[in-house]
Amino acid sequence: MTEFTHFNEEGRAKMVDISPKSETIRMAIAASSIVVSHEIYNGVQSGRMKKGDVLAVAQVAGIMAAKKTSEIIPMCHPILLNGVNISFNWNQATDGFYELKIRATVKTKGSTGVEMEALTAASAAALTVYDMCKAIDKGMIIGPTYLLHKSGGKNGDYNRDNFEWTCKGSGEK
Amino acid sequence: MTEFTHFNEEGRAKMVDISPKSETIRMAIAASSIVVSHEIYNGVQSGRMKKGDVLAVAQVAGIMAAKKTSEIIPMCHPILLNGVNISFNWNQATDGFYELKIRATVKTKGSTGVEMEALTAASAAALTVYDMCKAIDKGMIIGPTYLLHKSGGKNGDYNRDNFEWTCKGSGEK
Amino acid sequence: MTEFTHFNEEGRAKMVDISPKSETIRMAIAASSIVVSHEIYNGVQSGRMKKGDVLAVAQVAGIMAAKKTSEIIPMCHPILLNGVNISFNWNQATDGFYELKIRATVKTKGSTGVEMEALTAASAAALTVYDMCKAIDKGMIIGPTYLLHKSGGKNGDYNRDNFEWTCKGSGEK
Amino acid sequence: MTEFTHFNEEGRAKMVDISPKSETIRMAIAASSIVVSHEIYNGVQSGRMKKGDVLAVAQVAGIMAAKKTSEIIPMCHPILLNGVNISFNWNQATDGFYELKIRATVKTKGSTGVEMEALTAASAAALTVYDMCKAIDKGMIIGPTYLLHKSGGKNGDYNRDNFEWTCKGSGEK
Amino acid sequence: MTEFTHFNEEGRAKMVDISPKSETIRMAIAASSIVVSHEIYNGVQSGRMKKGDVLAVAQVAGIMAAKKTSEIIPMCHPILLNGVNISFNWNQATDGFYELKIRATVKTKGSTGVEMEALTAASAAALTVYDMCKAIDKGMIIGPTYLLHKSGGKNGDYNRDNFEWTCKGSGEK
Amino acid sequence: MTEFTHFNEEGRAKMVDISPKSETIRMAIAASSIVVSHEIYNGVQSGRMKKGDVLAVAQVAGIMAAKKTSEIIPMCHPILLNGVNISFNWNQATDGFYELKIRATVKTKGSTGVEMEALTAASAAALTVYDMCKAIDKGMIIGPTYLLHKSGGKNGDYNRDNFEWTCKGSGEK
Repeated sequence: MTEFTHFNEEGRAKMVDISPKSETIRMAIAASSIVVSHEIYNGVQSGRMKKGDVLAVAQVAGIMAAKKTSEIIPMCHPILLNGVNISFNWNQATDGFYELKIRATVKTKGSTGVEMEALTAASAAALTVYDMCKAIDKGMIIGPTYLLHKSGGKNGDYNRDNFEWTCKGSGEK
Repeated sequence: MTEFTHFNEEGRAKMVDISPKSETIRMAIAASSIVVSHEIYNGVQSGRMKKGDVLAVAQVAGIMAAKKTSEIIPMCHPILLNGVNISFNWNQATDGFYELKIRATVKTKGSTGVEMEALTAASAAALTVYDMCKAIDKGMIIGPTYLLHKSGGKNGDYNRDNFEWTCKGSGEK
Repeated sequence: MTEFTHFNEEGRAKMVDISPKSETIRMAIAASSIVVSHEIYNGVQSGRMKKGDVLAVAQVAGIMAAKKTSEIIPMCHPILLNGVNISFNWNQATDGFYELKIRATVKTKGSTGVEMEALTAASAAALTVYDMCKAIDKGMIIGPTYLLHKSGGKNGDYNRDNFEWTCKGSGEK
Repeated sequence: MTEFTHFNEEGRAKMVDISPKSETIRMAIAASSIVVSHEIYNGVQSGRMKKGDVLAVAQVAGIMAAKKTSEIIPMCHPILLNGVNISFNWNQATDGFYELKIRATVKTKGSTGVEMEALTAASAAALTVYDMCKAIDKGMIIGPTYLLHKSGGKNGDYNRDNFEWTCKGSGEK
Repeated sequence: MTEFTHFNEEGRAKMVDISPKSETIRMAIAASSIVVSHEIYNGVQSGRMKKGDVLAVAQVAGIMAAKKTSEIIPMCHPILLNGVNISFNWNQATDGFYELKIRATVKTKGSTGVEMEALTAASAAALTVYDMCKAIDKGMIIGPTYLLHKSGGKNGDYNRDNFEWTCKGSGEK
Repeated sequence: MTEFTHFNEEGRAKMVDISPKSETIRMAIAASSIVVSHEIYNGVQSGRMKKGDVLAVAQVAGIMAAKKTSEIIPMCHPILLNGVNISFNWNQATDGFYELKIRATVKTKGSTGVEMEALTAASAAALTVYDMCKAIDKGMIIGPTYLLHKSGGKNGDYNRDNFEWTCKGSGEK
């Protein structure tokens, strides 16, 4: 039977004891994305030169959110992050929409993994893009957000393919 | 031409001045979801009675994250939230997977909207579910995360349909 | 039957909607105390002149904690505090022990009360005294912590007597 | 003469240098409690099934507060917590009142102890119960809050008996 | 005789009660600067195009720090900021050094001024430039940091000239 | 050519990977100062006895800000501080002004230095003095703020002379 390691003997949540785990270099990569309209795509892209850099702000947001993960996710252990990097990549989606792919890479040397830090960083970067473009169009779609890679620790590595989905447009009523 | 209201005359980010906007009751509803395996679904559901309540922790996480939004999203204005509610709803997805639908409703009386607070609350709730179930399966997919409804303020209401997508399974290599 | 206003229709916690409540001046006073040994009492008292001021640090801690209340208490609304004051008063307890009585007064102009801010401020001040004196004796007892006074809001004022208790010493094994 | 290790040569507070201390596994257990009326007791208990789980929220609050300790207690060192657990136990007090006993256990591997983290976690859990029940009765009494156990570090273990006190009712005027 | 409004009748700090003050639009502008070597100047300037934008990160840091002011300055009231803008301006200093002048403008509608928010924003922006360039040269000098303008509130406006000073080089031993 | 170690291959900011760096004892000392009028000088000095201790609050602010550095400076690594000390020293400046010299000393055992923690602590202490005295005179000047000493880590020590400057008075219009 499945054991939920975050719960104590009264059936309530606890922060699990990681004292027995060894300190090793651990890494995680998470993916997120945000699908935006052609108008937003043009604004963000030209913004790099003329009107400001949405992605620069999103990058800072992602990195600072990675450091805040244990304040946002209740049962997460505080971790000293060794490094955080966030990269962006545009893809043309269907129907004139564009998908901004976000990859967040987090490294630590510690007793527990950094999957949540990578997922939180990628989510915060996507939310920040939403915030900075929402005056133009509120129909942006964030996601899918998922773990691409994990290494370090005794349970071995985790790797998965990119998750493909189809974007059907804004759906505003 | 599109105007990015978050940027100043040097092309860098600023927090836009909302002094001219009037204080009104404003509300936003955001959606997110997380697709999990049958094993996790069973664990979370039975957990309500026997092993602990993943959703109770996710709910607290979402509410606390709503209050932290302006610390996570760099150009967000600090806002006094009047109320936050988060609800959960399970749907059977394809191939033995289950989708936990998350709805976050946020209300304020203020000079700017609470779209980002609702989106942040829904995202944090989803991330917390991921955290508490990841010992069983790291292939969970978060998203799509998007705005369902916004009301209050001079720009009128925003409403959109649920965003439907297809989940293709874990993709672990 | 008792209604728990912090819970939603699924039986989970929510931050209750205070939109219908009116903005008024509200005040709360909370009490806490910490019982310390004669040696600590002497150290803290003389410290005012010679070795440092434990109570000055505790006072700052209490005021800063009042501002953090909505980050510490999950369902608390964020509130703009108008003023915070903390006062200290020594009493001789039985058996050579001394009780430091702490009073925290918090004021706001808002839609919800500041009971939790006053209780949190008083608790943080007491915990800070513990922290700064624990190298000498870990047997200090914090409490009772309770609400002395509340005014403002439609439910009327609340007042209670000081809560008297008896301190029986350190109990260290 | 007593040396207040938190003060510098000017008599003002400092964060003491723990560089000479060795990294070891350290643990602390703190106790707190909250005395509530029969009506609140019934509400919280039945809430587990029907109206929501006050203790689930208090547990999350306690765990998150443990992680925030060094932000609340000014001279506390930041510490990476290895594990946090909080347990609850009801006792019938005198005069129809009930006492909810709270035990917070915190573990770390580090150069300084976790007494303050355990005391802060227990205090935050008690304050959260107060917050979620105060609409029914504001006469709840928090405390006594104290250290039950400490182990790890060169100064040896600390253990003490439960601190017994008598609760005299609400005292509301 | 001078009255220190931040202290209570015991001579200890309090957060002063601003309940009697009226809510008005208030603004403050603060100045800071950082003097850097020619090599850093070139790196930051070319960075805009090729290697990254130090000032974009400093700008985000300044805006986020403005929102954190009441967490950093103990007796500061929490304030809802209406807008924050930060601008940069390079000047050639003596001896091959360059001075980056920073101006932080903060607006609110509230019962107390935003001088501290503007000063904190300017300071955080300067510190961030230091952080991002310190691998090249640690001899950068931050300051002077001061208030240029304040308006709103019953005490009238405040304006002062730029504060001129002379930079004498790195002084590294 | 200068390499900005904080930027990734897309030219955007990252938190650099410090995994290859070894854990050693590291220390940094930063200087800041604030120039105040004779009236403020008298108030602060007599305050020690009669009206409250501005410097006690500034000291706590500096120590707590050191712990917050990685939340304020975007690309800073989170660090476990081993010790923080802040000292104050008054000097008579020209024209009836007084300069409060601030020294912040920070120690850690870790993989990266604590220059930013020391600079942030000194800045926060100076800002706090400004906050607590600004009701008397808003013309105070903060700075210069700079690094005096750094040791630990593979790049060797850094030391510099005090930076001398001339203060020309308040300049209020």
